Amino acid sequence: MPELDLAINNARYLVTCNSSGEVLENYSIGIRAGEIVEISKSQLNGAINYDASGKLIAPGLVNTHTHLAMTLLRGYAEGVDLQGFLERVWAAEGAIMDGSTAELGTKLGALEALLSGTTTTLDMYLFPEDTHRGAVAAGLRHVAGPIFFDFPGLDGMEWPARIEFAKSWPDKLGKIGGPKVPIYLMPHATYTCSPDHLSEIAALANEINANIHIHISENNRENEDVATRYSRTPTDILKDSGLLNRRCVYGHGVHLSDSDLAEMSGNAAVAHCPGSNLKLASGIADVTKYLKHGITVALGTDGCSSSNDLDMWPVMRLAGYLIAQNSGPQNLDAERIFRMATIEGARGLGMADSIGSLEVGKRADIIAVELNSPHLIPIHNLFAQLVFAAGRSDVSDVFVDGEQVVEDYRSTKLDFSQLQKDVTNRIAQL
Amino acid sequence: MPELDLAINNARYLVTCNSSGEVLENYSIGIRAGEIVEISKSQLNGAINYDASGKLIAPGLVNTHTHLAMTLLRGYAEGVDLQGFLERVWAAEGAIMDGSTAELGTKLGALEALLSGTTTTLDMYLFPEDTHRGAVAAGLRHVAGPIFFDFPGLDGMEWPARIEFAKSWPDKLGKIGGPKVPIYLMPHATYTCSPDHLSEIAALANEINANIHIHISENNRENEDVATRYSRTPTDILKDSGLLNRRCVYGHGVHLSDSDLAEMSGNAAVAHCPGSNLKLASGIADVTKYLKHGITVALGTDGCSSSNDLDMWPVMRLAGYLIAQNSGPQNLDAERIFRMATIEGARGLGMADSIGSLEVGKRADIIAVELNSPHLIPIHNLFAQLVFAAGRSDVSDVFVDGEQVVEDYRSTKLDFSQLQKDVTNRIAQL
Repeated sequence: MPELDLAINNARYLVTCNSSGEVLENYSIGIRAGEIVEISKSQLNGAINYDASGKLIAPGLVNTHTHLAMTLLRGYAEGVDLQGFLERVWAAEGAIMDGSTAELGTKLGALEALLSGTTTTLDMYLFPEDTHRGAVAAGLRHVAGPIFFDFPGLDGMEWPARIEFAKSWPDKLGKIGGPKVPIYLMPHATYTCSPDHLSEIAALANEINANIHIHISENNRENEDVATRYSRTPTDILKDSGLLNRRCVYGHGVHLSDSDLAEMSGNAAVAHCPGSNLKLASGIADVTKYLKHGITVALGTDGCSSSNDLDMWPVMRLAGYLIAQNSGPQNLDAERIFRMATIEGARGLGMADSIGSLEVGKRADIIAVELNSPHLIPIHNLFAQLVFAAGRSDVSDVFVDGEQVVEDYRSTKLDFSQLQKDVTNRIAQL
Repeated sequence: MPELDLAINNARYLVTCNSSGEVLENYSIGIRAGEIVEISKSQLNGAINYDASGKLIAPGLVNTHTHLAMTLLRGYAEGVDLQGFLERVWAAEGAIMDGSTAELGTKLGALEALLSGTTTTLDMYLFPEDTHRGAVAAGLRHVAGPIFFDFPGLDGMEWPARIEFAKSWPDKLGKIGGPKVPIYLMPHATYTCSPDHLSEIAALANEINANIHIHISENNRENEDVATRYSRTPTDILKDSGLLNRRCVYGHGVHLSDSDLAEMSGNAAVAHCPGSNLKLASGIADVTKYLKHGITVALGTDGCSSSNDLDMWPVMRLAGYLIAQNSGPQNLDAERIFRMATIEGARGLGMADSIGSLEVGKRADIIAVELNSPHLIPIHNLFAQLVFAAGRSDVSDVFVDGEQVVEDYRSTKLDFSQLQKDVTNRIAQL
């Protein structure tokens, strides 16, 4: 049997997030060619051996809704609601954004995400070739895809050019490389893409076997505007266009009716972004109800110009708080919240067969959490500790596809001081 | 002129939190005998020189409601509301808590608080001599005080003994020493102290010139229970007992009517604990209304058995989010939130003449925030960066009364590994 490429030994806790929620103590993981091939009580020997003594080992976090390039606009739109936000941010993007700037912003965002323990992001933005190149350089498992608006965006593309670009996306993605991800098409929203255009995207998605990511029912005003124009909910429009026949990740999904939820069942998942939703006063999603309807609920940060960072830990914390407040503390289960940030995120993205849990046969997207800190002792409830007390700075090491991309709190892939200089230069014109 | 004890030089930003909200760039602070004696554009020379190049210097954070000893019960009461929480936690306290355990728990809590940039806490707990000794050992400015219940608490004290103990508190506090704090008396709540007892405390407070800290209107059930027993609101009871004639810090204060707010004006401040309030489903305080009534709103974490850590950064973040969601993003002002955690906290505690801002004549309670991190660039809005993107791990150095108590992310006062062993031993019996 060939040697292991990587062995992670002596994990104090190994939080598997498998279907029975096993938490193993003093276990090891063996990795070959980026895949988990062994989970064992024995000490393993690899070409590289990582000693996880005193640490908690868990699946990398999955951020199911973000716009990494907008990290360059962190804090640029304060004190506004969603519509005010779009107005302000779109103007700033007009001033500075092109492919190379999007790549730079995505690099910064990917670095921030990885340092905080996020290993996979679903990232909606213009210039997806550039953003993907930036994220892959940082070592992130980066799910990008062509974005669609009726009007030409900053990239200047008219509708037919968008469709052509999208047809070539699988090929483009393959050429850039990086950790394996599914094909996604990303219509921006039902208020920016007409029903006819959405039907066209649905047909294309069938043709190239793509999943869908779209902003849906982020605030009440969106629902009202869409109802005024089309006498339907955004979810009705998705259904009528055929997009709900595909795996479909809803960005936000704050205001969904019972009939929306019934229409969604099967393929649609909600990327719940409680921080951004509160900060833009978009509302509070009734997650407990979504779960009762059998909807997959995953978590996201949104972009840094609305909720300011890419940290999934406060998102978990807040998601838990809001469940307790809205549907009673008896519905608050810290383990379920941690699963929303891992295996449920993977399920939402249609990637549950390859990531989101630590099991033999899955890709080795793994984080190490240092537990020996004043804010993490004593441990009475391990998942409460992760969700309500741990934070990004507790993540010491991160592996994606078995490659160590964060080592002792630092990127192994990018030079932050150079990146910082590049960012400073690039935003000087704002 | 005598030499400075400490000079903090080259602060990239000096966030003063003074009355005009000045943020100075490339400034220095001179400290003598624990007091800020100079704020200057020039490089200063002290017996100790701290180079703040690239860092943001700000007042230490003020946590206006916590129970530090309960850090030992972090995560011990999950999935319960306030009343379920009290039941579970009081039983656990019965099993392990005595003076020496309270001291140990408070040491751990004080260490955690300081490492996250909190320099002052208002800490309600039994065994205040012990808790104060523990917190002072960690280097914290620790506002403790005698606690009161009608019934004998874990400390076994009957009412007359509590009153006697409280009379001797100023003397006891003086003997323990530590950074200077005001005298506080801490009746637990209006549902645990009778109106007659509260009147007795009010008389004693006048006699020894004490401030008051008490849990008030934390959830609706509390208000209903108190209304059933006394046909009044908790605030009415405080007013009738004379306690509102003193400076009075409300723990939580989630459900306050317009007439409560009118009665409070002048002396009462709200220690807003949004994390604990959501997690226990206590409700969401209407902070914007409180501010319109002229009430001082400060921030708190509550204890670690309800909201799991002592980190004021997510509390700021959440306080901001909830203002945006509840009263519109136009009412969300990140600078105001940061002031709630600093100068407004000091004002709430009756300490605004000595702490809460960086001004000549104030005590040198100061934090240094490292800005060169991926999640803190670029800076478009400095206060949005502090409130919505920074976190405890960005605090590199902390000074209390001019003494450096955290240096390069580590306590200069306590040995964490020893503390960790002591904690593990002490909670083994739970």
